[in-house]
Amino acid sequence: MGSLNTEDVLEHSSAFGATNPLDPEEFRRQGHMIIDFLADYYRDVEKYPVRSQVEPGYLRKRLPETAPYNPESIETILQDVTSEIIPGLTHWQSPNYYAYFPSSGSVAGFLGEMLSTGFNVVGFNWMSSPAATELESIVMDWFGKMLNLPKSYLFSGTGGGVLQGTTCEAILCTLTAARDRKLNKIGREHIGRLVVYGSDQTHCALQKAAQIAGINPKNFRAVKTFKANSFGLAASTLREVILEDIEAGLIPLFVCPTVGTTSSTAVDPIGPICEVAKEYEMWVHIDAAYAGSACICPEFRHFIDGVEEADSFSLNAHKWFFTTLDCCCLWVKDPSSLVKALSTNPEYLRNKATESRQVVDYKDWQIALSRRFRSMKLWMVLRSYGVTNLRNFLRSHVRMAKTFEGLVGADRRFEITVPRTFAMVCFRLLPPTTVKVCGENGVHQNGNGVIAVLRNENEELVLANKLNQVYLETVNATGSVYMTHAVVGGVYMIRFAVGSTLTEERHVIHAWEVLQEHADLILSKFDEANFSS
Amino acid sequence: MGSLNTEDVLEHSSAFGATNPLDPEEFRRQGHMIIDFLADYYRDVEKYPVRSQVEPGYLRKRLPETAPYNPESIETILQDVTSEIIPGLTHWQSPNYYAYFPSSGSVAGFLGEMLSTGFNVVGFNWMSSPAATELESIVMDWFGKMLNLPKSYLFSGTGGGVLQGTTCEAILCTLTAARDRKLNKIGREHIGRLVVYGSDQTHCALQKAAQIAGINPKNFRAVKTFKANSFGLAASTLREVILEDIEAGLIPLFVCPTVGTTSSTAVDPIGPICEVAKEYEMWVHIDAAYAGSACICPEFRHFIDGVEEADSFSLNAHKWFFTTLDCCCLWVKDPSSLVKALSTNPEYLRNKATESRQVVDYKDWQIALSRRFRSMKLWMVLRSYGVTNLRNFLRSHVRMAKTFEGLVGADRRFEITVPRTFAMVCFRLLPPTTVKVCGENGVHQNGNGVIAVLRNENEELVLANKLNQVYLETVNATGSVYMTHAVVGGVYMIRFAVGSTLTEERHVIHAWEVLQEHADLILSKFDEANFSS
Repeated sequence: MGSLNTEDVLEHSSAFGATNPLDPEEFRRQGHMIIDFLADYYRDVEKYPVRSQVEPGYLRKRLPETAPYNPESIETILQDVTSEIIPGLTHWQSPNYYAYFPSSGSVAGFLGEMLSTGFNVVGFNWMSSPAATELESIVMDWFGKMLNLPKSYLFSGTGGGVLQGTTCEAILCTLTAARDRKLNKIGREHIGRLVVYGSDQTHCALQKAAQIAGINPKNFRAVKTFKANSFGLAASTLREVILEDIEAGLIPLFVCPTVGTTSSTAVDPIGPICEVAKEYEMWVHIDAAYAGSACICPEFRHFIDGVEEADSFSLNAHKWFFTTLDCCCLWVKDPSSLVKALSTNPEYLRNKATESRQVVDYKDWQIALSRRFRSMKLWMVLRSYGVTNLRNFLRSHVRMAKTFEGLVGADRRFEITVPRTFAMVCFRLLPPTTVKVCGENGVHQNGNGVIAVLRNENEELVLANKLNQVYLETVNATGSVYMTHAVVGGVYMIRFAVGSTLTEERHVIHAWEVLQEHADLILSKFDEANFSS
Repeated sequence: MGSLNTEDVLEHSSAFGATNPLDPEEFRRQGHMIIDFLADYYRDVEKYPVRSQVEPGYLRKRLPETAPYNPESIETILQDVTSEIIPGLTHWQSPNYYAYFPSSGSVAGFLGEMLSTGFNVVGFNWMSSPAATELESIVMDWFGKMLNLPKSYLFSGTGGGVLQGTTCEAILCTLTAARDRKLNKIGREHIGRLVVYGSDQTHCALQKAAQIAGINPKNFRAVKTFKANSFGLAASTLREVILEDIEAGLIPLFVCPTVGTTSSTAVDPIGPICEVAKEYEMWVHIDAAYAGSACICPEFRHFIDGVEEADSFSLNAHKWFFTTLDCCCLWVKDPSSLVKALSTNPEYLRNKATESRQVVDYKDWQIALSRRFRSMKLWMVLRSYGVTNLRNFLRSHVRMAKTFEGLVGADRRFEITVPRTFAMVCFRLLPPTTVKVCGENGVHQNGNGVIAVLRNENEELVLANKLNQVYLETVNATGSVYMTHAVVGGVYMIRFAVGSTLTEERHVIHAWEVLQEHADLILSKFDEANFSS
């Protein structure tokens, strides 16, 4: 180890001959190339199969086994991006993308990311780049006011906001703060008795955060939800579960209601949940990752009524707010509880500004020390579009989702499986043997005009689920649209999430045409044996 | 709440009239503007005060209290970036930046970030964008081979690598994996007995990770280091501390040796520490955040000898490897232990590829679900510069640090406080009353030619520390250079970290001139009363 070969000696003794890797004119030349490359990509993205069609391991076959010894030109690399990388992308920016939740890019979000990357400051504390900290605090107040958050969440009040990477991190930070606040009262030895609550619809981020924070996996509660409550977490059920836990000697710690669940955009009732939580001195974190953005529109704001009684609130601006990944906005009422749990103060970071206590040091509000200048992109999004356009962009998505809902609802072969609340429609294809219109004498006529004998409900469900699974795969395999699924209350359903920035009404109509065409095909070939196996 | 005012009604009823926020031609127009803006920034960055000169709260005074209702033009926003943001930046990309550790940008790193941001895919699992996952695995093998990591860390062997945001996250993930591996053997109820070890020089990330992971704060050990070992963690001392803990009924879990500590770039002896750890079945994570990059040069590789006996290894490509923030490279020998601790498998993410077990789903290797396409920038850095230029870039920084070290060492008013190992020099100014050359009869002549009576060591140290604190502040206040400090073994020292991409030898010479000039000034005004208060 450490011995030099001839190549290394030559290399070692050579002068520092290469162009400086941050040469401004080379930056300019190559930067303009990439802008054109990406502008062309957006112009053409509609033409690519939305979901990548590559097979596992495709790239290893195409790339060399080691990094190149000698430099390669940007032209060569961009050719490879086109030929090797783009086929392996699932095009989240395609107007035909309706999968998962949107990852809505925008010109302003992109430009903000460029500036942030260009300056490349590491804003762990105020001192390390004051603008990064101060802009973040200001923008979080701006956004908080747009959401009509109470003053208790704003710096201009008694709280404050911070930009994290993802909701997972936001939940882990607030959970850690809640945990330590509790353990500091009751003693560290009780960590094994703490319980964390969500519903069976809560994002898996909560369970993972609990796991990382050292909560006993046995003490995680996914409280059951029901169709009758539109799969929202009933406060009364929550209370029952809490009481059982207390009975068993456990200590309720944290509950995470969701505004817009991943599976079906269900909304947990914030107010009633906060009331229960208050009784048991629990921390309430509201996860509005997807639907929080919509609450800047007055007509959606009521979904977060009750936020004034919670402890923290987060949404992902990188989902449905035109800000590129990653950008999770977290507001907390009591920043000091975050700071107590997450602060560090090594000598090499000591500075006058921190000691003056006049500044925010965001390193103490998050997991990591280093942090990117994320507020730049959110600032640019807010200014470039203004409140009015942002509301209208979101409303246009909701309107398109309504259009789609209308089309699906009017077709008797389909069913809307849960009520649409925001810009996502959950639906499924009904198998010919599933009854939509009840006939007489136990004989039923379904939406496809086929006469069938009703069979037991479970068999029906298995069949319907299998049909929709195959149907969705067939539709996605065309490459012309991409949707994903969820299973809620045992029902397999297709999620149609409108929100890709480039999506226009014509794309939604197109998606419906593709769905219809494949419904025709799959129903014409319908053979129970194919689906019930 | 939720009631509409006139403005909202008008807004609500208006057609979707604004340009699409991802319009390709608008993207092109504004994108080119930002490239020129940033190219000019790099050209001019040398002219700005390196450390921002603003006062706490400067920005709130200059920006409005709420987000704009109507859109603003990119021209207006860029004017504000120039007038309001840039004065609040500390210019990490300035060639005169020597503070903390470098945040070394490059054209290739920037372009990679642009592509990643432009595609804006969310690569939580293989399926969601296969290229993002596959390129990451390939690039981590490339980089691992450049570092001569054993096959047990590579996908082409039995391990694998992953890109995280920061070392803090990498440590938290590996610590969680280690914790759960241990608790699954001995029972969850023993979480309060687990102990985590570092040295008093280990980065604060370790203590914070332990805190978040639910390790009892009393069970964190910062093992003392000494000047005799160049502030490296002595394996024998580590063993003594472990034995005491075992004696007390505790369970050793995790040790984190550092290659290149933050304060002084000290190197902990990996091999001997791994030997001790092995005896007690502990997880060893090597934190080479700063200095790991240098190990692609054969002459530095020996610093990580012993890595073959550790469990995981990480370095920050965003520190000293020309890749913009954030990009922490983590390699693990046993990915399954990460996956066991961090995996989630909700229905809405189920897919054929995952079920085939032929793919990596990186969401199970990290804290968050969502993840950016970070490998794009690392790939572009490796290809654009090639192994040969990357080595030479790093060596040029080491060479400049040596030059600086030579200048400081030749000046009798200064002292090199710890040996230089990589591209950082730690030094201090000696107060006139500190003795460098011993005279006779208890009377001593120091480097500044001043006759002084030797006083007790502690007084000396307090005085010297205060002097250097004032000196450093004076130097930084000029705006023409920026350095930060550390205190190691009680000695306040100035850290001169070469690594900003634009730094050339002339900048280092200039920094030395500034230091000399202010040394003259401060020593000429030297008045003990001013410093010892």
